[in-house]
Amino acid sequence: MTRATDIEAVEAVNTAFYEAMERGDFEEISDLWLDDRRSTITCVHPGWPVLTGRGEVLRSYALIMANTEYIQFFLTDVQVSLAGDTALVTCTENILSGGPAEDGAELGPLVGQLVVATNVFRRTTGGWRIWSHHGSPVLTETGDEEGDDTAA
Amino acid sequence: MTRATDIEAVEAVNTAFYEAMERGDFEEISDLWLDDRRSTITCVHPGWPVLTGRGEVLRSYALIMANTEYIQFFLTDVQVSLAGDTALVTCTENILSGGPAEDGAELGPLVGQLVVATNVFRRTTGGWRIWSHHGSPVLTETGDEEGDDTAA
Repeated sequence: MTRATDIEAVEAVNTAFYEAMERGDFEEISDLWLDDRRSTITCVHPGWPVLTGRGEVLRSYALIMANTEYIQFFLTDVQVSLAGDTALVTCTENILSGGPAEDGAELGPLVGQLVVATNVFRRTTGGWRIWSHHGSPVLTETGDEEGDDTAA
Repeated sequence: MTRATDIEAVEAVNTAFYEAMERGDFEEISDLWLDDRRSTITCVHPGWPVLTGRGEVLRSYALIMANTEYIQFFLTDVQVSLAGDTALVTCTENILSGGPAEDGAELGPLVGQLVVATNVFRRTTGGWRIWSHHGSPVLTETGDEEGDDTAA
């Protein structure tokens, strides 16, 4: 495998992850997350605490899917960094989503969200699998970035 | 190296990272971040967009240090997941910080912050080094977690 091939394969799995979310395909999400008892998976949804292990992580996706009628990800700034059998992907998730309908409406109100994610993948015999996902809201500042003293 | 030794070594470097922040030790921070042209480092501070490469990442620490008079991290829930030469650390950063003094005061007002972090480390000949840091604010909910439908 060349480095370029690895990067392509990682990008494809990263895209598949978001497409599975869009389709609400729980089985695909479950397949894409690493299933290795030696290397515990971890997940942080925007604003959430850390979720650890397949039980907690997969339950969170079931919960999110149950509360999401519609979701679309426009990925930008996708960057892959490789080291051995680990790949690190960062990307910006431009999200448009809507909750379940209320009061007879067809769809809940649509909400736009700007989230950045760090996704860590491991190479397995079955392909690259998600070891960790960390998404967080981007709190956009108007102009003067130096005013932000948030730390670490 | 046994697995237990690896975990101990990773935890030590993770602790050293936060202690260097507390001391405002820029040189130590710079040493702890991976310096490998093949594997680009990435960093997300709470609420920030993704920073990529040593230039951007280290400048952000210089900026944060310049705007932080006092900072202390109380780490809880530190968990290490290992796979080959990569280690994934998740932890809760209970942060107490203060900005520079204003109007002759000794210290700016102290602010408490609850942040969760995913830190990725790579094994190098010189020890474990930080490949990626992603910190995000925990937006605590009062009771009913099921009301949160934030996604991915």
